[in-house]
Amino acid sequence: MLTLDFHPTGRHFLQIPGPSPVPDRILRAMSLPTIDHRGPEFAALGLKVLADIRKIFQTRQPVLIYPASGTGAWEAALANTMSPGDHVLMYETGHFASLWQKLAARLGLKTEVLSHPGADIWRHGVQASLIEERLKADAQHSIKAVCVVHNETSTGVTSNIAAVRKAIDAAKHPALLLVDTISGLASADYRHDEWGVDVSISGSQKGLMLPPGISFNAVSAKALEASRKATLPKAFWAWDEIIEMNKTGYWPSTPNTNLLYALSEACDMLLEHGLEAVFARHQRWGHGVRAAVKAWGLQIQCADPAVYSPVLTGVMMPEGVDADAVRKVIYERFDCSLGTGLGKVKGRMFRIGHLGDCNDLTLMAALAGCEMGLKLAGVKLAGSGVQAAMDHFSSHAAAVPQRKAA
Amino acid sequence: MLTLDFHPTGRHFLQIPGPSPVPDRILRAMSLPTIDHRGPEFAALGLKVLADIRKIFQTRQPVLIYPASGTGAWEAALANTMSPGDHVLMYETGHFASLWQKLAARLGLKTEVLSHPGADIWRHGVQASLIEERLKADAQHSIKAVCVVHNETSTGVTSNIAAVRKAIDAAKHPALLLVDTISGLASADYRHDEWGVDVSISGSQKGLMLPPGISFNAVSAKALEASRKATLPKAFWAWDEIIEMNKTGYWPSTPNTNLLYALSEACDMLLEHGLEAVFARHQRWGHGVRAAVKAWGLQIQCADPAVYSPVLTGVMMPEGVDADAVRKVIYERFDCSLGTGLGKVKGRMFRIGHLGDCNDLTLMAALAGCEMGLKLAGVKLAGSGVQAAMDHFSSHAAAVPQRKAA
Amino acid sequence: MLTLDFHPTGRHFLQIPGPSPVPDRILRAMSLPTIDHRGPEFAALGLKVLADIRKIFQTRQPVLIYPASGTGAWEAALANTMSPGDHVLMYETGHFASLWQKLAARLGLKTEVLSHPGADIWRHGVQASLIEERLKADAQHSIKAVCVVHNETSTGVTSNIAAVRKAIDAAKHPALLLVDTISGLASADYRHDEWGVDVSISGSQKGLMLPPGISFNAVSAKALEASRKATLPKAFWAWDEIIEMNKTGYWPSTPNTNLLYALSEACDMLLEHGLEAVFARHQRWGHGVRAAVKAWGLQIQCADPAVYSPVLTGVMMPEGVDADAVRKVIYERFDCSLGTGLGKVKGRMFRIGHLGDCNDLTLMAALAGCEMGLKLAGVKLAGSGVQAAMDHFSSHAAAVPQRKAA
Amino acid sequence: MLTLDFHPTGRHFLQIPGPSPVPDRILRAMSLPTIDHRGPEFAALGLKVLADIRKIFQTRQPVLIYPASGTGAWEAALANTMSPGDHVLMYETGHFASLWQKLAARLGLKTEVLSHPGADIWRHGVQASLIEERLKADAQHSIKAVCVVHNETSTGVTSNIAAVRKAIDAAKHPALLLVDTISGLASADYRHDEWGVDVSISGSQKGLMLPPGISFNAVSAKALEASRKATLPKAFWAWDEIIEMNKTGYWPSTPNTNLLYALSEACDMLLEHGLEAVFARHQRWGHGVRAAVKAWGLQIQCADPAVYSPVLTGVMMPEGVDADAVRKVIYERFDCSLGTGLGKVKGRMFRIGHLGDCNDLTLMAALAGCEMGLKLAGVKLAGSGVQAAMDHFSSHAAAVPQRKAA
Repeated sequence: MLTLDFHPTGRHFLQIPGPSPVPDRILRAMSLPTIDHRGPEFAALGLKVLADIRKIFQTRQPVLIYPASGTGAWEAALANTMSPGDHVLMYETGHFASLWQKLAARLGLKTEVLSHPGADIWRHGVQASLIEERLKADAQHSIKAVCVVHNETSTGVTSNIAAVRKAIDAAKHPALLLVDTISGLASADYRHDEWGVDVSISGSQKGLMLPPGISFNAVSAKALEASRKATLPKAFWAWDEIIEMNKTGYWPSTPNTNLLYALSEACDMLLEHGLEAVFARHQRWGHGVRAAVKAWGLQIQCADPAVYSPVLTGVMMPEGVDADAVRKVIYERFDCSLGTGLGKVKGRMFRIGHLGDCNDLTLMAALAGCEMGLKLAGVKLAGSGVQAAMDHFSSHAAAVPQRKAA
Repeated sequence: MLTLDFHPTGRHFLQIPGPSPVPDRILRAMSLPTIDHRGPEFAALGLKVLADIRKIFQTRQPVLIYPASGTGAWEAALANTMSPGDHVLMYETGHFASLWQKLAARLGLKTEVLSHPGADIWRHGVQASLIEERLKADAQHSIKAVCVVHNETSTGVTSNIAAVRKAIDAAKHPALLLVDTISGLASADYRHDEWGVDVSISGSQKGLMLPPGISFNAVSAKALEASRKATLPKAFWAWDEIIEMNKTGYWPSTPNTNLLYALSEACDMLLEHGLEAVFARHQRWGHGVRAAVKAWGLQIQCADPAVYSPVLTGVMMPEGVDADAVRKVIYERFDCSLGTGLGKVKGRMFRIGHLGDCNDLTLMAALAGCEMGLKLAGVKLAGSGVQAAMDHFSSHAAAVPQRKAA
Repeated sequence: MLTLDFHPTGRHFLQIPGPSPVPDRILRAMSLPTIDHRGPEFAALGLKVLADIRKIFQTRQPVLIYPASGTGAWEAALANTMSPGDHVLMYETGHFASLWQKLAARLGLKTEVLSHPGADIWRHGVQASLIEERLKADAQHSIKAVCVVHNETSTGVTSNIAAVRKAIDAAKHPALLLVDTISGLASADYRHDEWGVDVSISGSQKGLMLPPGISFNAVSAKALEASRKATLPKAFWAWDEIIEMNKTGYWPSTPNTNLLYALSEACDMLLEHGLEAVFARHQRWGHGVRAAVKAWGLQIQCADPAVYSPVLTGVMMPEGVDADAVRKVIYERFDCSLGTGLGKVKGRMFRIGHLGDCNDLTLMAALAGCEMGLKLAGVKLAGSGVQAAMDHFSSHAAAVPQRKAA
Repeated sequence: MLTLDFHPTGRHFLQIPGPSPVPDRILRAMSLPTIDHRGPEFAALGLKVLADIRKIFQTRQPVLIYPASGTGAWEAALANTMSPGDHVLMYETGHFASLWQKLAARLGLKTEVLSHPGADIWRHGVQASLIEERLKADAQHSIKAVCVVHNETSTGVTSNIAAVRKAIDAAKHPALLLVDTISGLASADYRHDEWGVDVSISGSQKGLMLPPGISFNAVSAKALEASRKATLPKAFWAWDEIIEMNKTGYWPSTPNTNLLYALSEACDMLLEHGLEAVFARHQRWGHGVRAAVKAWGLQIQCADPAVYSPVLTGVMMPEGVDADAVRKVIYERFDCSLGTGLGKVKGRMFRIGHLGDCNDLTLMAALAGCEMGLKLAGVKLAGSGVQAAMDHFSSHAAAVPQRKAA
């Protein structure tokens, strides 16, 4: 028998950009007894989480909650709005944008991919002008959707979604705007309604601080309209039946009750704190971590400070250093998990997650683990990142004090 | 703020045919901290549950674990093996067989539905000879799959899967055999390999005693072969990438870690007890509950004693009695949830779940709740079902004693 | 390695008169991370539980919370108020009254024991007139305390505490009134202030629905006054330092934080329901269980219907039947724990707990287990107790419905 | 309603010298359903923890487990072995030694207190030669017991218990040796049998990594012999009845079941790791933390490096700095709890706990919190303690790697 909770000593530091550490309040909520998903007690839970999650997406429109991972929600967004062979314009900002493109292609869509001009295409956010240009060139409106990633989990680069909206509008193009904010939601500011997004896709295991297992589609009226005509086969993912049954707090197929308990608790925590405070603390953490990386003399994966991610920071290795060898030292010696470099940057960088249930000291621990591990792995550092992060955190008070001593 | 755990006093009796009551051991396992789904600790967990679940399906072939509900696993089975417009032969044994047919139709398949001759088609299991006959008539082998439900959750009727296999073989027909054992697995005997099933579909919230949120496809070599040629769009559900990555204990998209903890614990419990013992105790419970229903003078939904379900019993109401009004009394007065009548038997019957983490006394409690509630709702009973069930349980020793007093 | 949670299948029915079944809400609260017992967060918790527990005792005077079992609280009550050799008047209503007398004797007190006249002294409550008579005869006021048990856990007999107070007053005697309400509090009505009790002793694992591990002394001004002159050695139990530090929410020695979380949750639950409703539901359960015992044709240990306990019922066996052999059958076959006969009634009776987190159906389950077990053990029953209890529960609506179906 | 789990964001760092952080495995074990403390399942648990805890004390003699805090176990040790007015020789190494002396005096014992010659008596361990000298002078053997503290929680000073044993033997004195190892056990090496201790006193919330609520007396044959003649009143604490009932796995009064679950899990974890490894990791942590304190240029409370505590480090403030003001900044800004200065060093020092469920990074987090907080509070530091600790931890490999990457 495998011991489920192998426990060397002390807490593991889970500093990957998702799953993020799950607060005890949420783990406890999730472990309450399962109830009848067709009974009155469930309906109260269902209506509550459906109302709460809208606030998190900053929308008054329907949000679908799937008992599935983020990949499923990508598929749901496309399956509900597209027809076989439809042409979608995507934008490669990193590994997850690529995976989404692959998924779209597997579904039988014609995918066209824009990217940052020049080399290093994974070090920049979406350049909205490229989208505008391309859409203007599409006089027949063959492009049915523009698909962009709000926060690239593989690189630590965000994109300006409001600018993409403006680009589409400037091109007077009817394409739908589909946005993956899987790792952005509830960490970075995100405004489904204000930014005019047609389908926002997200997941549970990032800013929402839940275990993986639920994912979301927030949808606009235009997207709903499109879904009535779209002909890709859809059943499990079909919006229509779910939205209809959600009116009474239920789902057509079996919802994953215990994760909905967790979602309810997570929304309570986030809304008690206030989204503004949540976004501000992620900004603060990002600043502190990047101060460390800069002090080490290492490159940040995101080459454009305007779109540094508040969620994670990609740390590039000097020539000749295997990032995964560094990660291994940090894991084995210091019980800290960091994100690997994905796809084309495999071995070239690692990722430090600074999202969700973190605070200054959990990040200081992670940075100390990184600094010791980098040195043990033979990486020459320009200076102490730990010192730089301490300087940042102690010179910048949090908006809200962590605790009040009476 | 909604209190998540509204708790009147004492335990709720969750006697629906799934979700079944989740044991505390499993709830505790599920609430352990989430780990890196790309780290070494996860791989150990992944390999363990993939090995364990094969034992539960009684197969040596791959089993896919989806972070989704059973409905998703229905879709996965079809999306991986079928092409648009393919002809599938289904068999209506009840509401869930109907829902699966609707799902197949939504996916663009041509569905043909067999059913029991005469009225009362929902009171009988699959008649394999009808399938044999139909397949023999399909000389061009236009039928690509035969889809049957092992244990109809809406009625309490099982079907003889081995007989269906024999029927297909007797017809020398190449159709795949797809079986929904969502509510059968780990309660009723089920043998994926021995019975020659091509795709077995199941879920977590029944005999596996987990909360909802994961579902399964167990697949044969022939099904895998079919999946290479099938052209229905598939991405999230695609077997190929998952089976490939599962070799190392990982998944291509994010698995729902905490439910996998729960699955690991559930498999430990079931395999420690032994599948034979698990099946025997479900048979025992079914006998006890049906003894009660007969003593009440009420009809059992399943008209054929040879295929009584060991998982649940459908109880038909006398003419003029609204089954849901009875359920409401039992719920409000006695804090016991029963399954509603679904689809065409809505209001005509209710369902008593006797699966998973039950024992003689949890069932006696449920039966006492039913007996009191039936009387309070004005239903005339022939005699005491509670007495009949006590007679059954006390005259039939369990194979394994519940406890040993030193 | 011992598996902590041996789990045959289904829930165990813990129907002993304490520890009573602990609700999931409370188990979850208890498992939150331990905090600094000298920090500000703890003070808030401390002040809350100190305020809440007064409401449960129906007192405005101090209540001491000990990190110890009820036996410790017995000792605390005596050690704080008595001097070596002091004369205390006790009243033997059952095994726990006897144990308290033994403890008092071990502490060096002179104990005098009253009891019901005639045989069967354990089948009656305290006869206050005997106390009045004895006190009147004590012209020199050598008796320093009268010690009685409110609800005898060993027999299921309560005593009229208000009557004892009146008896002391009628005798114009200055003795303190010390009352053990370990198994009475939060199940049977109990009024520390109104009834003029000087020290009320209680524990956590009964009506408060907590695991064992904390116990209480509620004290009057007169008891506090007495404690200043009492000379039995006292340190750990000493009221003075604790009461002083409690003013700020802290304790002089380390409190058991996690059980205080549980206490906080328990008080929330009890006070949300309302003490009146809590007492009423215990009365209802007692009626139902006694209806069953009577229908079986068995004797109830308590011979006086006026003082039947709402907490537990002692069931006497016919001549020649070993009660523990019956309990063993019920435990091994039906996974239900009943209380053994203690002390002089060992083997002559068993006890059914009906306290705390119960409801009609958990009791029906227990009664079904008893009825089947009694028959299997060869006890001839006059009729069906299960039937009688169902008749009672279905003809008497609960004050508050268990659930509302929307 | 008070929210029990106030949760600002991220984990709280509980770096006081007890309660220490409780591992999730233990919190989960503790939250299993409460069982019958008189049933067979409990006996198995009781026998297991009684056997396990002997291994932790390194003894083959009886260990008593009390449902009480450490203060109770102090009282138990004295109440069982002493008679009113007995003369005990104590040794003031810090605040807890003083509290124990006060408790002994409250129990009516004649206490005589030795201490380190000169000023700064709280900065040194027990000087065994002083004890030897005093005992030699006690020709009539009026001294009945020598009481010393193994690890002073208030200062971070350990004492050499083997040397005290030798001193008593060298003086050929029959006094019992009573040792408080409340904060030493399961963190610092402790050998009840080999060191010839008569009563070892400990608690749950330190090296055992449990919440507070259970405490221990490990006893020698000589102590048991003494207990038969000792006349201090004892009932709840009395060894005789407990040892007798423990033979079958039970207790005479109600044990706190759920904390025994936790104890069982804690012993499993400690014994799986091995006591040697547990002691070695505490030594390592102590070295790292003291390296930080030295780099800051601050004084360590313990003036004798030979007896530095592996459990905690007392950090003295420069003249004019209020240690509690520093702690307040660290708590409010960085969500980290440190131990206050107790008694005569109140405001002069704070304490960093490095015991139990820690690792290099949890300590780095705490040290970063201290360093930032000290600076924010205006304390001038000589250098970076964080840097010094990283140097220590990265240059000293742990005996056992934290994790294995496959």
